[in-house]
Amino acid sequence: VTKSRENFVYQEPDEQVIQSLSIDNVIFGIGDGVLKVLLVRQEDPRHAGSWALPGGWLRRAEDLRDAAYRILKELTGLSDFYLQQLKTFGKVERFPGERVVTVAYYALVNAEAYTLVLGNSARDAAWHDVNHVPDLVYDHNEILSVAIERLRRDARDEPIGFELLPARFTLAELQSVYEAIFDAKLDKSNFRRRIIKLGFLEECMEKQHAVPHRAARYYQVDKKAYHALKRRGFGAISFV
Amino acid sequence: VTKSRENFVYQEPDEQVIQSLSIDNVIFGIGDGVLKVLLVRQEDPRHAGSWALPGGWLRRAEDLRDAAYRILKELTGLSDFYLQQLKTFGKVERFPGERVVTVAYYALVNAEAYTLVLGNSARDAAWHDVNHVPDLVYDHNEILSVAIERLRRDARDEPIGFELLPARFTLAELQSVYEAIFDAKLDKSNFRRRIIKLGFLEECMEKQHAVPHRAARYYQVDKKAYHALKRRGFGAISFV
Repeated sequence: VTKSRENFVYQEPDEQVIQSLSIDNVIFGIGDGVLKVLLVRQEDPRHAGSWALPGGWLRRAEDLRDAAYRILKELTGLSDFYLQQLKTFGKVERFPGERVVTVAYYALVNAEAYTLVLGNSARDAAWHDVNHVPDLVYDHNEILSVAIERLRRDARDEPIGFELLPARFTLAELQSVYEAIFDAKLDKSNFRRRIIKLGFLEECMEKQHAVPHRAARYYQVDKKAYHALKRRGFGAISFV
Repeated sequence: VTKSRENFVYQEPDEQVIQSLSIDNVIFGIGDGVLKVLLVRQEDPRHAGSWALPGGWLRRAEDLRDAAYRILKELTGLSDFYLQQLKTFGKVERFPGERVVTVAYYALVNAEAYTLVLGNSARDAAWHDVNHVPDLVYDHNEILSVAIERLRRDARDEPIGFELLPARFTLAELQSVYEAIFDAKLDKSNFRRRIIKLGFLEECMEKQHAVPHRAARYYQVDKKAYHALKRRGFGAISFV
């Protein structure tokens, strides 16, 4: 096996992993009102200091999706997040020195993850604004572009934005998540009418406190109603 | 390499292909007003007579998408079709005896392909109504289900249905394609208004001839207008 395998964050004994097949995770979060992606610093001396999507290898005894889940969990410490397969990237020249096809996944993690990840100085990982991402290794900029496009499409088809928030959130917070995803300002009353009409948001008894403006109501997702609606189909939501 | 590799239609010398990684194609067409899928007869003695999605191996010197294209072209003789990556399937137990992850693609081919394929008796390939598909080998029924769901989602987001028709078609033919995709009857005037409003259908001079009813106008796709619209986004079309 060549040196280039050591690029990846997670080392595995070669005989236990599938050769020529890697996994890369595009992990999205929201911070400062913008969409962010979690990147790790590359350890390959040829790419010293470069940023990359966090990735790893598929173990022989592990389902593909389980591998993507494990890699994300090991990096963030989180075990509850939205995870979807994105696309498999397999150009001959995408990886230097050997043929590696990579299966990309994308994940949405809520804001509480920030402190977990950024507080862990043992790994050099950081959130980057998706509008100001540096040159990444290999084809990782292309993978990220495909992920952003897919996230926007998915968010138009089903209201997945709340996956980026804590369990309880205000409608203003939810709106700011969609504004970050679509990189656009949304009309407040239209947004509220449409999201409430879907019928899976539950008002909490508690309101915000110690805020300088009128305290807003907290909401949470009624998961039963959400999944029932998901089975019937949301229709096109068209927030933007 | 084990016996099970011989299941696939296209044989390759082992050193020229990526181990543990296959490609499977879900090829859709329309026939008798219903959505059909092209299946091939399995040659593996353990599965003698069983049907399977047509598949093959990824060559070391070939991009992933090129491999899917080649496999489809070799089977149908066609070189112009709609081809999209579907999903990668990688459960540990999906393939007997060895670990094989498969990248599935889905394709739409137009009706002229039928005679080409069915006339080629050298290979045992046949179109099957998607509502009456037999038990397929491995996880191919699951792959087909995911492909049908994806085709319907894609057809709601962009008008890809004409890929299943010859270059010139009547609006009634186009409507019957969407009815086959969605497995539902559509309202004729709504359908016509919405599809024409998109602005990429061009009236041909020629009309149908030798038909027992009033001759209908032929249309064709203005590809420049279609691709310009595609870049801007179709919005949700909602034929159904």
